[in-house]
This record gives sequence, structure tokens and C-alpha cells, in this order.
Amino acid sequence: MGHVGSTVAHYLVACGFVDDLVLIDSNEGKVNADAIDFEDAMANLPFHTNIYVNDWSQLKDTEVIISALGKIKLLDNPKADRFGELNFNRNAVREVAQKIKESGFNGKIVAITNPVDVITSMYQELTGLPKKQVMGTGTVLDTARMQKAIGQLVNVDPRSVSGYNLGEHGNSQFTAWSTVKVLGQPFEKLAKDKGIDLNKINDDIKMGAWKVMKGKKYTSYGVATAAVRITNAILSNSMLELPVSNYREEYGVYLSYPAIIGRDGIEKQCKLDLTAEELEKLQNSANFIKEKTEESLNEAK
Amino acid sequence: MGHVGSTVAHYLVACGFVDDLVLIDSNEGKVNADAIDFEDAMANLPFHTNIYVNDWSQLKDTEVIISALGKIKLLDNPKADRFGELNFNRNAVREVAQKIKESGFNGKIVAITNPVDVITSMYQELTGLPKKQVMGTGTVLDTARMQKAIGQLVNVDPRSVSGYNLGEHGNSQFTAWSTVKVLGQPFEKLAKDKGIDLNKINDDIKMGAWKVMKGKKYTSYGVATAAVRITNAILSNSMLELPVSNYREEYGVYLSYPAIIGRDGIEKQCKLDLTAEELEKLQNSANFIKEKTEESLNEAK
Amino acid sequence: MGHVGSTVAHYLVACGFVDDLVLIDSNEGKVNADAIDFEDAMANLPFHTNIYVNDWSQLKDTEVIISALGKIKLLDNPKADRFGELNFNRNAVREVAQKIKESGFNGKIVAITNPVDVITSMYQELTGLPKKQVMGTGTVLDTARMQKAIGQLVNVDPRSVSGYNLGEHGNSQFTAWSTVKVLGQPFEKLAKDKGIDLNKINDDIKMGAWKVMKGKKYTSYGVATAAVRITNAILSNSMLELPVSNYREEYGVYLSYPAIIGRDGIEKQCKLDLTAEELEKLQNSANFIKEKTEESLNEAK
Amino acid sequence: MGHVGSTVAHYLVACGFVDDLVLIDSNEGKVNADAIDFEDAMANLPFHTNIYVNDWSQLKDTEVIISALGKIKLLDNPKADRFGELNFNRNAVREVAQKIKESGFNGKIVAITNPVDVITSMYQELTGLPKKQVMGTGTVLDTARMQKAIGQLVNVDPRSVSGYNLGEHGNSQFTAWSTVKVLGQPFEKLAKDKGIDLNKINDDIKMGAWKVMKGKKYTSYGVATAAVRITNAILSNSMLELPVSNYREEYGVYLSYPAIIGRDGIEKQCKLDLTAEELEKLQNSANFIKEKTEESLNEAK
Repeated sequence: MGHVGSTVAHYLVACGFVDDLVLIDSNEGKVNADAIDFEDAMANLPFHTNIYVNDWSQLKDTEVIISALGKIKLLDNPKADRFGELNFNRNAVREVAQKIKESGFNGKIVAITNPVDVITSMYQELTGLPKKQVMGTGTVLDTARMQKAIGQLVNVDPRSVSGYNLGEHGNSQFTAWSTVKVLGQPFEKLAKDKGIDLNKINDDIKMGAWKVMKGKKYTSYGVATAAVRITNAILSNSMLELPVSNYREEYGVYLSYPAIIGRDGIEKQCKLDLTAEELEKLQNSANFIKEKTEESLNEAK
Repeated sequence: MGHVGSTVAHYLVACGFVDDLVLIDSNEGKVNADAIDFEDAMANLPFHTNIYVNDWSQLKDTEVIISALGKIKLLDNPKADRFGELNFNRNAVREVAQKIKESGFNGKIVAITNPVDVITSMYQELTGLPKKQVMGTGTVLDTARMQKAIGQLVNVDPRSVSGYNLGEHGNSQFTAWSTVKVLGQPFEKLAKDKGIDLNKINDDIKMGAWKVMKGKKYTSYGVATAAVRITNAILSNSMLELPVSNYREEYGVYLSYPAIIGRDGIEKQCKLDLTAEELEKLQNSANFIKEKTEESLNEAK
Repeated sequence: MGHVGSTVAHYLVACGFVDDLVLIDSNEGKVNADAIDFEDAMANLPFHTNIYVNDWSQLKDTEVIISALGKIKLLDNPKADRFGELNFNRNAVREVAQKIKESGFNGKIVAITNPVDVITSMYQELTGLPKKQVMGTGTVLDTARMQKAIGQLVNVDPRSVSGYNLGEHGNSQFTAWSTVKVLGQPFEKLAKDKGIDLNKINDDIKMGAWKVMKGKKYTSYGVATAAVRITNAILSNSMLELPVSNYREEYGVYLSYPAIIGRDGIEKQCKLDLTAEELEKLQNSANFIKEKTEESLNEAK
Repeated sequence: MGHVGSTVAHYLVACGFVDDLVLIDSNEGKVNADAIDFEDAMANLPFHTNIYVNDWSQLKDTEVIISALGKIKLLDNPKADRFGELNFNRNAVREVAQKIKESGFNGKIVAITNPVDVITSMYQELTGLPKKQVMGTGTVLDTARMQKAIGQLVNVDPRSVSGYNLGEHGNSQFTAWSTVKVLGQPFEKLAKDKGIDLNKINDDIKMGAWKVMKGKKYTSYGVATAAVRITNAILSNSMLELPVSNYREEYGVYLSYPAIIGRDGIEKQCKLDLTAEELEKLQNSANFIKEKTEESLNEAK
């Protein structure tokens, strides 16, 4: 129930997306404050949500856990990475995963906690849940940022920009330009025609994220919206395609790659026709995640 | 775009309640951070919102301004009052009201800034807008808290508790028990039958608000939801009854009392059959607001 | 899946209120047409709904059944009653209740089928479900019509008119004027002050319903919205007060009287302070329903 | 306010998408019946909508007109065309366009009336509005049907199938297979791998539409949802890409081809990289529409 968790909760409550919501935080003052504040909103909301606080026993029948725990490492420049957050978050996840396991939870976990690919892997390993039931928000957010950046460039709704950012939700992620289309055209072609430098777009995206961090010390709305969209896809068994962090056998790690999300979690995995260059970037990203994940799992034992 | 303003904005964006949203804050870093963060959410939201930052010229055609500016005075106990916030907020409102006036704005102002009755009055006076076009969230929040407290006591949805808290959104506000009904019964009667102490309920409500302040240093969801509900009533010309802070001729001040909200703001004022005791409390509350308002308006000149 | 059933289904699908929706109708052509038509909408809707057709086995795990089956007897004047529909509907309900029972259904039934108090009673009796799990839309619709009529008279949002219509959802129903308030005043007093004839309001309400019947041969939006509101209260365990048709021990029948709706159905029953005249009207309404219900249950054996 | 118009209106009212809604129909009984029925729903809805009936003067300030007028020609087989509806609809549109013009309307028209490409052209010509302000639902519906058919084939949410149906919203429309992707793959390739016959999919789509017509004598939810999605894109200035019927200079007619929808209507037009075969189909479709449009405009003079 930090900045991201409470934003996720507010979105769920405000739109009435869930009937029962269990808020969990070790900071009892904060989590109770948010619960009371939500209840103070209820008389003026069209929908009712039942709110529970720090009740782990509820997890037994819970459909989706959204994990937003974690300390944020303040990014001091646009190139800073998310691994500064790892040490604290790793220990917290170890503890939480144990409690989730003990609760008898057999639903789906959507991890937001960074570094998300490593953390998602830890959750799966430590809870023993099937891999399809554990995923991370991954590059759903980076993809949205890419859609926004291009949307602003050509004055089009970000929802009308297709394509993906792939790999680690971190510095090794990349836009798979071969998948990006807008206005009916491959964006690479359109960019070439208009003299747009693709690298500059990626710099803009990173700069945007950094401006958010610099301006308010955390990011919340973008990633919370990504998490809620994934959660809704699970709850309503949509079979929706989203580039979540999911376990890819061929890379042996969790990384972001489009998958089909339904009631059982990762229901199906997509297969993109990437270019050789993109495949190499993805492999590099996978290697990086693998190394960090192994370190963390060893630490966690 | 502090805690409350950004929560209002998030609620509006997440639910697609408005088409165009102008975010204004003197802290450029923060307001730009929130704007970017909202735009990073857009690709994953069902609705589109056009976001503008610090563009006062847009106010000319704006239908509703929600004022959530202000420094919060940390309540150090449940009996602390909202007037510690007045000095800073008074000066800020003076400056903002001037800019609103210069923009040519002729819509409705919904003030959240505390002490809200005084601030609402200042906005009206300083912008020169008709009284019906300026209102405060007032005891819409306190009423929701009362509905919640009673709802929890008898296990009923707060929306199914009727009645009002009236007067100042501050320490002199009170629940008009003669208006409160639940389960088909006047709550006073039901409380008597069950041995419930009405004073204790009011203490619980104050304690709840204080717990929120203590736990997270601000309140946001409750009051933001109240503000958005009022705003939606204006935008859709609902003619909805809500206990907003509105100017009552007979008291010569802004105070919370049920009114009918529509496209022109305060479209009609209700007339409750209060008891002598309630009328006295309301008069006391009005006197207190009057004194504080006059002080502030004198200061502002 | 006649006019009312398909309107209920459309509302649920359009707003994404449910994840899984089973459509059942003996007219296979019609129910499949609606299912296909809903699926043709899905790509352009923000929410996903899983639609099943005529699959009774799904009822085992269904939370709420909304029964909108029935032939409509065309009202040829504003005083016509809903009992012309009874013969056909009685037989259909007998058959359907048997199938519901056989499915192992243990959720809540919300009956819309007219005459709704009798039909609700039949569903309860024939399925053997606990009385609290079976209810009818009853005068939730008549109450909404009263709120609208008064709202239009004083130019106030119908949601800001409180009070109830009680008894049979049929000719013996009545507005319990002692419960009706608007603009902070008892409506009876306000009507007297303004020279408004209360009987005329009830005539207007009946005339309105008749105009709908005359103009389109059925009513749909009003009653469908009532049914969905009840259903949402059940699904989210709201504990919301609504004047549904529920079994009142003291009258020995199903009739409309405010009750608290939650996950288990009728969670609590309200106790209004009615006038002697209102109590007599309610008793008459109850007597009428009792007689018709006994006839129908005898027929159904 | 036939089947489609009233479904559009219900969707708008139920979701609170608009603040003011003018219902227009020459059948006064029907349009008043629907208006009353909507008002009977209002007390149980979270949002308020102001409803006006047959008030042409309101059109002066109206942002969007949705035209769903028309007689439906019952399709007696899956190959039947929409031109049987033309004679009646042509005359009705002539009359209505004149009244729209006289009202001083300067907003956007979204035509649903069939044959939609011809009717859209008539609306533009007869009202004299700029071409960008007039559009038809076109193949937004056919595209949704294609997305659904493929979605069902591979068990994926239709929203996760990209691509378009183009041309006439009628028998000469076609799926531009080169644009269709699912699961990260061009569908043509995936279909080849799995031995799926592309022609069979188109037959299935047509058969689906025909089943809807056969089962309920009209289609409503699919096309109404398409119209509302377009309308929302206009109202919120989304700049959303949708294959509406829009005037393409190179073909000299209205036909369906992806365009960017915003506050001014058609804000931008896309440019697809179609295959030679697809371009030929599109030309044929354009030729057909051109011929029919000229006939109709000549008739209308």
C-alpha cells in the first residue's frame, strides 16, 4: 500500500472492478488509513467494495494477488537501473511468498515490484505455483510509453499504435520496431520518411519516466493502470494479449513477451517474427535477467 | 496537484468522466510528473482524456474548476482544527482567484481547500462570480463518514443511510440526528433501543479522520470522491441533492446545508425541519464561519 | 431473452458487470441471435464477457439467476392488471424451476416475470431454496417511477427523492407518502403547500407505464435497470436497501417492502413506521397476493 | 428509435456517456415510450442523462448526431444485400438532412442507416457539412465480426486480433488479410499452417450476421456498440483509429477505410500497404458504391 499499491486499490474501488479487496501492508498505520479513507468514499461511489485489512486468511480464496511491495530506489538520472531496489525487495518477497504459500492461495500473482522479472521469478519459485499463474506487469508499461510517445509524435491515440517493448522491464528492454505500426504503416518506414530518429524516441521514453521520478519521487498511474488491466483480463477470462513478464521456456527466464491472459493466468504464448537484431537484444536481455534471477534465488535459499 | 488534487485527477481520468482536464500547480515538476504518468496510463485505459498543464488560458471555456490547493496542517490530535491551514491557503487563494478572474472563467468552482467554508467564500468574493456558481465540498465528506459509521454499526451499505452532517466542515459541524434514518427507522430511536450513544458515533467519525491523517499524513480518497460526485452532478445537470458548502442568505455565510446541484451550480436550496437544538448548533457554526470569513476577507484586501 | 431479458443482458455486457453470462430461452433462434450480436459487440467494448447459451449445467455455480421469462399481456388501459399474464407464465415457471432445482443451483433468484410477487413465491416454493435467496424486482420499479414523477414536479434528480412504493407490483401497490421526502421536506407537506394532488401523481405514474406499453408494447429499460441494480448489490455484497419483493413473515407472502440486499440475498428486513392507512393498504395488497399465490401454487401441484 | 437507435440510446444512458440526449422519431408513441422508460430507469442508475424528445431546435448545439433511421429489409439468405432498404431510407434521409440543415447543426454525423456508404454520402451532400464531419459506422462492425470469428478460432479476445474489413458495408466488403494478425503472427500464415480456409471464415461471418437477422429480425448490439465507440472517440477527441466509412478522395466515394477520429470528425486518414488483390477488391467495392451513390443523389434532387 505504498504509492503504487494504493493507486491500484483506488482504481479498483473507484471503478467497482472487484467485490472484495484485501489490503496488506506491514505499515499498519498506512494501510488502515487507506482502508478508512476508501470507506469514507463509499457513500459517494456508485459501486460497493468490501475491504479487508491485513487478513492473510482471505488469500485462500483470492483470485488475484497484486504485489506492489517494495522500496523505490530514487533514479538520479535517466540511465539509472532498477537493481538498486533489489536487496530490500528480495527479502520482503521471500517473507511474503512464504505467507502466500501458507495461506493456501492458488490464484494468480501479478507482480509490480521491481526488478519485476526477477521478483516474478522469485514469487513463482518460492510459492511453488505453476508458472502460468505467476506474471509481472513487465513491459506493459514500457509498451504504453512507446505507444504514447509515437501517438504524440503523429497525433494519434496511443491505443491506435500497435507493437511492443520486449525483454527486461529495465535498462535492457527495447522497442521491437518491426512490430510497431501506426496510421496503417510500419513505424520504421514512417519514421524514415519523416526523418525521425528511432533512438531519440527511446531516449524520450526513458526521459519521461525519469521526469516522473524526479517530479514526484515515484511513478504510479501508468504502472497501476497496467496492473489493473492485466487483473481484469484474468478475472473476466478475456484471453487478452499483453506483453506481461511471463516464463519463456526457450530463454529459461521470466521476461516480457506478448502472452494471452485469461482465468488461468498465462493461457497461451505468442510467437513474434522478430528481426535478427531484435532477437539478439532479447537474448541479451534474457541473459541479464537470468544472471540476476539466479543470484537472487541463491540468496533467497 | 497535491495528494487530493492528483487523486481527483486520477479518478476523473480512470473513469473517463471528463474529456479535457487542465492540471495546474506552481510545482512544475510535480504537475508535469503527474501529467506524464497519466499519459503513460492512457494506452491501457478504455477512455481518452486530453490533459493540459498549467495552461490558464484554457479556463475561459472550462465548466468546473476543482480547487484542491493548499498546505495541510498536520492534525496532532482528533480535536485539532483546520484553521492552522488558513494563513498559507488564504494567500494562495487570493493569487489563484485573481488568475481565474483574469482568464474570463465563468463556470463553477468546487473548493476542497480548507478551511473550506472560508475559502469558498473567498473564491466567490475575489472572482466576483455569482454565489450559485461557487461551492465547497463541505460536509459531503462528513456526511459520508456518518453514513459509513452508522452503516458499519448496523451492517448496511452507507448509501442506505440517509441524513446529513451540517455546518462548518470543521470542528463546529454536527450530525443533524433528526434527519438520519436507516433500516426504515429514525436512527435516534434505533440507537436508543440498542443503547448506542450518539456522541460516541461522532467521536468515532472524528477519530476515523484523525487515524487517516496519522496513518498517511493526509486524507484523499474520501474527499476526492465527494468532489468528483459534485462535479459530475454539475456536468450532467443532475439536479442532485448534496450537503455542499453553499451561501445561505439567512446566515450570511457559506456553510454546508443540502442543496440541489445542476449545470448552473447551486440550483435550489433545501429547507430541513431541524430541531431547536440543531438550529442552535447550526447558528453557532455559522457564527464561527462568519467571524473567520470576515477576518480572511479583510486580510485579503 | 425477450424484450426485458435481452435488455438486462445488454446492460450487463455493455458495462462489464459480470464475467460469465448464461442466456437461456426456449426460442433457440432468438437466444442465439442475441448471443452472436453480443459477441459482435465485444471487439468494441472495454470489457469482456463470456457468453453461454442454453447451458443449464452452468447454473450449478451461478451466483444469480434473473428470470425475465413470460408472455406479456398487452395492457389495453391504464387500469389493466398483470394477472392476464399469469396462466402462461405459471406453467413456464413450473418447468423452469424444476430445471433450476435439478441443476444444483444454490444462488439467488431475482424474478422480473409478472405477476412478480406470485411468481417469486412460486420460484421459492418449487426450487426449495431458502426464502432469503429468492426475491422479485417488485416495486423497485414503481418506486423509481414515483421518484421520477416527483423529481419532474419539483425539478430534482429522482435519486434525491426518498421514499417507497409498497405492496404488490400491480394494481394494489401504493406510495407510502409518509416515507417520501424531497428538498428536505416531507412531500405530503410540500404538496399541500403547493396544492399538488397526491392521487394525481399516482395516476400519472400509472399513465406513464401505460404510455410505455402503448407506445412500444412492452416496458424494458426501467425494469431491467432495477433488476441489474439488485443483482449488483448481491454480487458485491453491498447490503443495499431496496424495496424488492421479499417474503414477510407477518403477511405470509412475498410483497415489496424495503430490505437489505447482500451476497446471501435478503440479509435483513426494514421496519417502516407506516400510518394506519398505509398499513391497511399494505394488508389489502398482501391479502390479494396471498389469494393469487395460493391459487397458483395449487395449480402448480 | 427503432431497434438500433433505442439500443444506442440505452447504451449511452446506462453508461452515462452523454449529458444530454435528444431522441427523434416520427413515431411519437414509440419515442415517448422509450423516453419514459429511460426516465423510469434513472433512479436506479449511477449517472444522470437529460432526455429530450423530438426537439429539433436542440440540434443547433449538438455535438454528434447518430442516425439509425430506416426500414430493415429482411435478409432471406446470407447473400442478400442491403440495397433493398435503399428506397425508403433514401427518402427519409432526404427529409431528415433538410431538417438537420435548418437546425443550424454544425457537429458530426455518425450514420448507421443502410446502405451506409450511400446514406453517409447523402447526409454529407444534403446537409452541406464538410466531409470530415460526416461518417458512417461502415465496416467497424464487419471488422469486429472478423475479429470475433478469428478470436473464436484461436481462443483469443477479439480485441487482440488486429486488422480490417474494408470497402462497402455490404456484399462487396472484404477482409484485408494482409492486415490481420493474431498471436504475433500474420493470420494468413497461421491459417495456412493450421489448414484453415480463409474463405470459410468470411462465410462464417456472413452466416453469423444472417443468423442474427433470422433469429431476431434485426441486428442491434454489434452495430450500436460500434456507433457508440465512434461517438465517444469524437466527444473525447481521442484521435482513435477506426475503419469508419469516410470520404476517400482517390476513390471519390465514402467507403470504409481506417481513419483517425477526433473532435472534428475524420482528423486524418490512414494509408495501408494493401496487396494488389486487395486493392482491386477495394476498387470494385468503390465502383459499386459510386454507382449506387450517384443514383441516389440524382433521385434525391
